[in-house]
Amino acid sequence: MKHSFCLAIDESLSLVQPTLEMAQELFEVVDSDRDHLRRFLDFVDSSTSFEPQEQYIKMKLEGYIKGTDRLFIIAFDQKIIGCIDLHFIDTTNKKAEIGYWLHSSQTNKGFMTKVVNKVCAIAFEDMGLNKLSIRADAENNPSNAVAIKNGFSFVGTDKSEFLMYGEFRDLNKYSLLKADFN
Amino acid sequence: MKHSFCLAIDESLSLVQPTLEMAQELFEVVDSDRDHLRRFLDFVDSSTSFEPQEQYIKMKLEGYIKGTDRLFIIAFDQKIIGCIDLHFIDTTNKKAEIGYWLHSSQTNKGFMTKVVNKVCAIAFEDMGLNKLSIRADAENNPSNAVAIKNGFSFVGTDKSEFLMYGEFRDLNKYSLLKADFN
Amino acid sequence: MKHSFCLAIDESLSLVQPTLEMAQELFEVVDSDRDHLRRFLDFVDSSTSFEPQEQYIKMKLEGYIKGTDRLFIIAFDQKIIGCIDLHFIDTTNKKAEIGYWLHSSQTNKGFMTKVVNKVCAIAFEDMGLNKLSIRADAENNPSNAVAIKNGFSFVGTDKSEFLMYGEFRDLNKYSLLKADFN
Amino acid sequence: MKHSFCLAIDESLSLVQPTLEMAQELFEVVDSDRDHLRRFLDFVDSSTSFEPQEQYIKMKLEGYIKGTDRLFIIAFDQKIIGCIDLHFIDTTNKKAEIGYWLHSSQTNKGFMTKVVNKVCAIAFEDMGLNKLSIRADAENNPSNAVAIKNGFSFVGTDKSEFLMYGEFRDLNKYSLLKADFN
Amino acid sequence: MKHSFCLAIDESLSLVQPTLEMAQELFEVVDSDRDHLRRFLDFVDSSTSFEPQEQYIKMKLEGYIKGTDRLFIIAFDQKIIGCIDLHFIDTTNKKAEIGYWLHSSQTNKGFMTKVVNKVCAIAFEDMGLNKLSIRADAENNPSNAVAIKNGFSFVGTDKSEFLMYGEFRDLNKYSLLKADFN
Amino acid sequence: MKHSFCLAIDESLSLVQPTLEMAQELFEVVDSDRDHLRRFLDFVDSSTSFEPQEQYIKMKLEGYIKGTDRLFIIAFDQKIIGCIDLHFIDTTNKKAEIGYWLHSSQTNKGFMTKVVNKVCAIAFEDMGLNKLSIRADAENNPSNAVAIKNGFSFVGTDKSEFLMYGEFRDLNKYSLLKADFN
Repeated sequence: MKHSFCLAIDESLSLVQPTLEMAQELFEVVDSDRDHLRRFLDFVDSSTSFEPQEQYIKMKLEGYIKGTDRLFIIAFDQKIIGCIDLHFIDTTNKKAEIGYWLHSSQTNKGFMTKVVNKVCAIAFEDMGLNKLSIRADAENNPSNAVAIKNGFSFVGTDKSEFLMYGEFRDLNKYSLLKADFN
Repeated sequence: MKHSFCLAIDESLSLVQPTLEMAQELFEVVDSDRDHLRRFLDFVDSSTSFEPQEQYIKMKLEGYIKGTDRLFIIAFDQKIIGCIDLHFIDTTNKKAEIGYWLHSSQTNKGFMTKVVNKVCAIAFEDMGLNKLSIRADAENNPSNAVAIKNGFSFVGTDKSEFLMYGEFRDLNKYSLLKADFN
Repeated sequence: MKHSFCLAIDESLSLVQPTLEMAQELFEVVDSDRDHLRRFLDFVDSSTSFEPQEQYIKMKLEGYIKGTDRLFIIAFDQKIIGCIDLHFIDTTNKKAEIGYWLHSSQTNKGFMTKVVNKVCAIAFEDMGLNKLSIRADAENNPSNAVAIKNGFSFVGTDKSEFLMYGEFRDLNKYSLLKADFN
Repeated sequence: MKHSFCLAIDESLSLVQPTLEMAQELFEVVDSDRDHLRRFLDFVDSSTSFEPQEQYIKMKLEGYIKGTDRLFIIAFDQKIIGCIDLHFIDTTNKKAEIGYWLHSSQTNKGFMTKVVNKVCAIAFEDMGLNKLSIRADAENNPSNAVAIKNGFSFVGTDKSEFLMYGEFRDLNKYSLLKADFN
Repeated sequence: MKHSFCLAIDESLSLVQPTLEMAQELFEVVDSDRDHLRRFLDFVDSSTSFEPQEQYIKMKLEGYIKGTDRLFIIAFDQKIIGCIDLHFIDTTNKKAEIGYWLHSSQTNKGFMTKVVNKVCAIAFEDMGLNKLSIRADAENNPSNAVAIKNGFSFVGTDKSEFLMYGEFRDLNKYSLLKADFN
Repeated sequence: MKHSFCLAIDESLSLVQPTLEMAQELFEVVDSDRDHLRRFLDFVDSSTSFEPQEQYIKMKLEGYIKGTDRLFIIAFDQKIIGCIDLHFIDTTNKKAEIGYWLHSSQTNKGFMTKVVNKVCAIAFEDMGLNKLSIRADAENNPSNAVAIKNGFSFVGTDKSEFLMYGEFRDLNKYSLLKADFN
């Protein structure tokens, strides 16, 4: 990844356009933080080499062509530290949902709040969306905090929305309208 | 529709397996009630002959094969009076969403409450689902009432979820877990 | 199969709309009658679990959407006892072929004659077909008898039409025009 | 068609491998004999330029790849005079059906009898088939005669098998087993 | 295009990751320079609105997923001034071909030489290719000059390789091996 | 292959229309000459039974339907001795590339020069092409000689165009315009 296409967030933090060549580095980031990431992410256990990551990047690029998905790599000093995406993009109703994860070594630094803010700007200002949603596991405090710090409103707790490791999980839903994005 | 495949709800009310031959009668039901139906249904204005209905039935049958959809015709004394479906069927997380509409001549008789109860029974007892959701326009009082009468819990109001006739609409979300279905 | 969609033939006998959930019961019916069924049916030996039955149901539902197939489950007192289908449906020439099988415990009771009569009614009265054909192995006396009892006319014996277990089989062809249906 | 791939039948008569470049000449043959050909062929009226013929050749070549079809052009002194094909090729049951037509200026010369004989040889000797069928309109005397002259046995008359110009037509079916081919 | 993903070439010049939102600006660049661009580019005359540009971007993104294409937008001070792409990417033989165009207002400034150099770096250093080719119309002096200034070797003149506006055009082919890229 | 469709070149040499039944004989020709053929052909090592040959014939027939490929079998006294094809057929620019191979027992007899001449005639006279190209490995003297003997002009040497057995190979490119074909 000597020549990557970036959108700067601050001096060190940036969003990076995903390429297929990044699958290996992305796998290594996941592989070095399995215990932390697997708690609230269902893809970690099956991510056993760069290939599932490459398939994931391809799937998201196909989703971009169809208009349903957009994936961004999060980098700090040119190194991959996480991912953020827009999914369920619905151009008819002008809305989408945001998902994100960060390597545990980079949490508690306010990075994700800045990253979500930039993705909201892309969605509202470039892509013409009217509403963004975030759904966070009810027990995932940092993820809930990111939504609130970015001005998202709490909609409700959706019980048993997600089945992971044999257990149904409750999800808190948050939303932000374009009119409320400063 | 001399020979239809039915599941009785009470002496007069039944769910009917949709066939392609029903597209004409289904169109006539919609066509005779446009003002009432179009207020909260976005497909009414484009339903100008039996063909969009036939396409809709085919699309739902394809969804059944893929595992995402199941459509039922609602009949009273063997005549079509509305539709109810399961969509967004997610067998991984064992959940689905219910949608329904009824001809205005048949409302306020408690029919839809009975119909939803039967579809919940199919979903929980035959299809192995764990959770059902209903999303109703915040101004559609009868639809909200059907959810509540069937024991669904209010989750929250999702603002600007749906764009219809140029206006963003708020949707109330309700859900029912299998454990709470008597 | 607590909630199945049925079309009654008499008090105990009915046609049932196939669902994917029925694959297991259908397999058990086949599995309990292999010696009888395999003599004139080529799918029995490869039907080693519910999965080939599920694929078969999906394939027939896809055929229904394309307009070439329609499958019905035969039930007695709500239990599966066999299958009957319309295949080679040709809406251009308004014709189709009927195929059927019954568990050996339910033969010699006149069931299949009633069942074929009902399927003829669906085909001629609801689906607008003009002609139905039955092809029966020349040595399968009960199957030939069903055609004759339903008023089908003998067309001819088609030699070496079907290769099963390494042997070419002769098929007797019968047909019934709508004008000759009761 | 300066360079065509041929299989000689006699000094003047040959089978020719169809190419897309032959569509124009094929159309001209059909176009110059509409009254004769349309009586028993349903494609004549819609054959209004070379394009439907090109689509037909492509469709038959696709069928060859899938194993269901094989088309041959019939030429006399290097000029196209008709077509013959194998369709419904069923490699499982080792059978196929033969169809053919000839320009009216070339009938009554015994050409088609020789042509069918050559196609039987290809089917039985090269393609490993065991049975060939011919279905001829009950009123098409020359076509029935070709089947009989080639040693095919009469199977039966299939009533109302084919709907053409709003009228149901009866078809006579003939078959020939490999064991009975000279 | 408030938030674009860029790879800087110098202070003002950059490569930009194409998004579907850029189709309108791309069309305007082409539309404002038709006489210049159409001389050696065959897509100009059919580019009558943003939609063919959007289809082109989608087609190139699909090519990226399949591994055959990669498109870059060329920007000067954040404004689109041209395009450059890798096509015929052949990962088996580790080679690709480069194509490019520039708005006439930005030519003769050495921009394309710098841009091609950066794309060579991406191809050789990130994508693992071994050889890059450029084919330029024999009469397109600036395009030939770009190849030579970037150290590409002349391979030969391929006569009548391209048919444009009813005239066969000769193309000069150039190639550069990774070992020769400084 | 008792009944093959042929185009005579001289008394013994002919082009033959490929059929799926020829896959076995084609495999045997390749299998009996592996050391000779594998030096400049990359498919030899993976050709371990008739099946890859059958897939190849199907792929070329699909290419014929799409307009990109045309394959011919080369026969001497009715026995397969090699293959020749048109690939990269580009009807827009009216050009194609020729590829060929011959069993080593049949080389040095002038066969391929005659065969290429006939394929040029088909391409220029029947298919309406304007230009044909041949690319030969720079070390494959007989293949280069065939191009020159047929009047093709040398275009240039394309370095490292092809990666075979871990080594990059140089290809000599030759072309022939219709105007220069006698």
